[in-house]
Amino acid sequence: MPREDYDAFPKTAANYVPLTPLSFLRRAGEVHGEHLAIIHGDLRRTWRETYDRCIRLGHALSQRGIGRNDTVSFICPNTPEMIEAHFGVNMSGAVLNSINTRLDADTIAYILEHSESKIVFADTQYSPVMKDALALMGDGAPEVIDIVDPQAVLKDGEGERLGTQTYEEFIAGGDPGWDWAMPDDEWDALAINYTSGTTGRPKGVVLHHRGAYLMATGTIMGWPLPKHPVYVYIVPLFHCNGWGHAWAMAAQAGTMVCTRAVTAKAIYDAAADHGAQYFGGAPIVLGMLINASDADKRAFDHTVHAFTAGAPPPPAVLAQVAKLGINVQHVYGLTETYGHVTQCDWKQEWDALPEDEQAEIKGRQGPRMAMMEDATAVNLDTRQPIPVDGEAEGEILLRGNTVMKGYFKNPEATAEAFEGGWFKSGDAAAIYPGGYLKIRDRLKDVIISGGENISSVEVEAVLFKYPGVIAAGVVARPDDKWGETPCAFVEMKEGASATEAEIIAFCRDHLAGFKCPKTVVFKELPKTSTGKIQKFLLRKEARAL
Amino acid sequence: MPREDYDAFPKTAANYVPLTPLSFLRRAGEVHGEHLAIIHGDLRRTWRETYDRCIRLGHALSQRGIGRNDTVSFICPNTPEMIEAHFGVNMSGAVLNSINTRLDADTIAYILEHSESKIVFADTQYSPVMKDALALMGDGAPEVIDIVDPQAVLKDGEGERLGTQTYEEFIAGGDPGWDWAMPDDEWDALAINYTSGTTGRPKGVVLHHRGAYLMATGTIMGWPLPKHPVYVYIVPLFHCNGWGHAWAMAAQAGTMVCTRAVTAKAIYDAAADHGAQYFGGAPIVLGMLINASDADKRAFDHTVHAFTAGAPPPPAVLAQVAKLGINVQHVYGLTETYGHVTQCDWKQEWDALPEDEQAEIKGRQGPRMAMMEDATAVNLDTRQPIPVDGEAEGEILLRGNTVMKGYFKNPEATAEAFEGGWFKSGDAAAIYPGGYLKIRDRLKDVIISGGENISSVEVEAVLFKYPGVIAAGVVARPDDKWGETPCAFVEMKEGASATEAEIIAFCRDHLAGFKCPKTVVFKELPKTSTGKIQKFLLRKEARAL
Repeated sequence: MPREDYDAFPKTAANYVPLTPLSFLRRAGEVHGEHLAIIHGDLRRTWRETYDRCIRLGHALSQRGIGRNDTVSFICPNTPEMIEAHFGVNMSGAVLNSINTRLDADTIAYILEHSESKIVFADTQYSPVMKDALALMGDGAPEVIDIVDPQAVLKDGEGERLGTQTYEEFIAGGDPGWDWAMPDDEWDALAINYTSGTTGRPKGVVLHHRGAYLMATGTIMGWPLPKHPVYVYIVPLFHCNGWGHAWAMAAQAGTMVCTRAVTAKAIYDAAADHGAQYFGGAPIVLGMLINASDADKRAFDHTVHAFTAGAPPPPAVLAQVAKLGINVQHVYGLTETYGHVTQCDWKQEWDALPEDEQAEIKGRQGPRMAMMEDATAVNLDTRQPIPVDGEAEGEILLRGNTVMKGYFKNPEATAEAFEGGWFKSGDAAAIYPGGYLKIRDRLKDVIISGGENISSVEVEAVLFKYPGVIAAGVVARPDDKWGETPCAFVEMKEGASATEAEIIAFCRDHLAGFKCPKTVVFKELPKTSTGKIQKFLLRKEARAL
Repeated sequence: MPREDYDAFPKTAANYVPLTPLSFLRRAGEVHGEHLAIIHGDLRRTWRETYDRCIRLGHALSQRGIGRNDTVSFICPNTPEMIEAHFGVNMSGAVLNSINTRLDADTIAYILEHSESKIVFADTQYSPVMKDALALMGDGAPEVIDIVDPQAVLKDGEGERLGTQTYEEFIAGGDPGWDWAMPDDEWDALAINYTSGTTGRPKGVVLHHRGAYLMATGTIMGWPLPKHPVYVYIVPLFHCNGWGHAWAMAAQAGTMVCTRAVTAKAIYDAAADHGAQYFGGAPIVLGMLINASDADKRAFDHTVHAFTAGAPPPPAVLAQVAKLGINVQHVYGLTETYGHVTQCDWKQEWDALPEDEQAEIKGRQGPRMAMMEDATAVNLDTRQPIPVDGEAEGEILLRGNTVMKGYFKNPEATAEAFEGGWFKSGDAAAIYPGGYLKIRDRLKDVIISGGENISSVEVEAVLFKYPGVIAAGVVARPDDKWGETPCAFVEMKEGASATEAEIIAFCRDHLAGFKCPKTVVFKELPKTSTGKIQKFLLRKEARAL
């Protein structure tokens, strides 16, 4: 009976190993231990050294009683510590919570509380906002460990020590000979990343080991990444774990050039001094490269391959970066999908097209990458797939192994996001032959500015607190530099008044700076018969401004 | 309670998809449908055409009532049909059984019977041996479908139609619009490959979908394979499913140049006419390239990357193939591991070493590839890891997701192979720093000749049938062309006699040609006190011949 005989094989330790990116780190440390893993200013560390430091971190956490399914937070730029966090935290069994360094104290406190974070590692550049966040939490605040980076250039007020130990002191307590264990189950939680959605408070997106492993292999196949790539870490590691690139670099034993800030100089220096060939970043980064000062621009004699996600770069930008020696590939994804899961996979025959047609194609977000099983778009009413004609518009649906486990402690939002067996992206796109998506509109109240998600609802809630405001609608306004900026439409009650500057200043007191409206328009807002603000009309108006 | 909350996410259709190479085919067909997938003589087929033909095959099988865990056999060289088999059979839910075309009728009959094969697709070049095999099976013989390849160059007696339909007629009954399904479980059986082991009858190695997916991604990362590679299929697809390369080619939407026979001309033509950049093959293939006639040798202006497995190529061979523009990487694996799972991963700093030291390193089998979790060697007595000193010898143990499910209908052999949570390779190696293995000896009674496994025990059993033979031991004799050839030591009873030619002729009547001894030595065999033949002494003697 072959039916039974083929099923008669139990999984054993010999032939079944849970998928996890920790496996890539171990291999890099053991096989390519002497290869350079990290460049950070004058600092150099091999994969063996990095592997040992990750084990130390995992062991030190473990000694504090931190283990499976505990949350460990990091608020930190793209430094060696942040890369170590992406392995060491998971070695203890814990879940990594990387916090956006641009958030306000209130939101940081919310994230630490909601994720039930046991310990937070904070780069002392962010001590001012961390101090406020911890004060808000009072007795419920987690323990703080200070990351003191000699490369940090600190402003007044930054650099204060808030914690009980430094990161170096902390990991010194860990033993690099510790017998750490892979997860027993590849579905175990690996990371929790908070993302601004359509509601005011960010949601905790929970990722798992299996997805992280496949994100890395799919990225290597899709970019594609050779062995020992040299990579400059521009996309923040607090954004979908830096699109999973630290895991991919471990898998190919690459070299990562760290950056504390996203600057054109960092990229030019990495390319010229270290031969960096790869980076990922928001389209704004391409503009920065073009508009860099002559002092920051450096010559390099190899091609640099960039993944960019967000608003498609205008043809003029693509043409200019190509002249700089940078080959841009447009990708698309969300925090809920570990980062990029579609890619404008270039076809050889397109090389023969006129430049403007090539630019149009380069502006598409492309078909699914290998780790995503399906990417399609459905009509908003019928929920049926739209025609593949580059005209019809529908909501992008995604399905595959690099879709999140779900939203932390929010089964309703999780069920809604996965309704019908697909992840609903909230983005509207047309489809071209080959499954090439082109995003046309956003169905969610989210503004993406300089690669950061901003919840319209959160900004509107602040506007409503301003004396005399009776209606407010915040939408995206296209912006050459930032992609989009928040544009506020405000309706005041009769007799009340405010200036644009007053509204913006009020927002600055209540929101992280990047979330504040850059434009304020006072007017009676268009509403439906039931009183709902007609945002599509506001979006149209903002585009025309 | 984060411990519970992190575990509170059920797998859904949105975020969990079983891993299977079928996913790669679907993506190639849908995204890169117009890209050239297959070159076979004058024949050209795109990925869309190939995808459609695979669906037809799957549907036609399904219409015959073939489904999950049924066995479907193919005996066929590396033709388009054989590549289609590697997807279409699994689309029906069935398990692919690729049969070595060099086997004798008796062994083929054994494989068809043991695997409970429901249907066999046979290239008519093999009709003579297939006819005998079917006759041996009598009423139990499976249905035959004839693969009639216009590219076949047939000898007298070949080409007879044995089946009810041709392959083209068979798949014409399938609908390319069929709504085929991925497997429900990635642990489902995908292929069964019979391999000669230490016992006389071959064992059925059962592979699963998860392993095949990871074999493809690990190969892409390790070689590494770019997008749209051009590949000439030299390693037979009946050997560990052609090392999984058809799956990897689907994943990267590559172009495969088919070959009916392993010849230097096929490789030179593929490189010169089609720009082929990749192939895999036994070391004997490298010798063929060096020794090809001037008429067969062709110029090409790009580097060809070759994976070779088996006896390490001698330094002189490596130097000569390098001059031909071929970069050889040494790999190691077994049928039980889907093919190659270690690779002599080259390090940049080795470029500076003297040529002979480089050649010595190139002869190592290297550390584990990314899809293999662990590759080590243990002392035969203590079963403890041997020192990493390039001196000590131990048995290679492997552990990871590209280890077989087990041996079909042979739980004892499966349990023995996986004893202690590792797959026991039966090969002895030393270990160099970085986990670089170098094979030193074979612990199993297996001879590897021209890439084919030969069981000593099977040959010995034939020798014992020869009148007057009272003891026989068959061991490997090193051979420049074949790597190894079987060398028979034969002890005759007093008064009996035979010549080398008579013994070899007798073997030819009872064994596939490649299994017959090339050398016969008549002598009294060395035995232990309990009468067991001391094979290690015979191996030593064969090496000195």
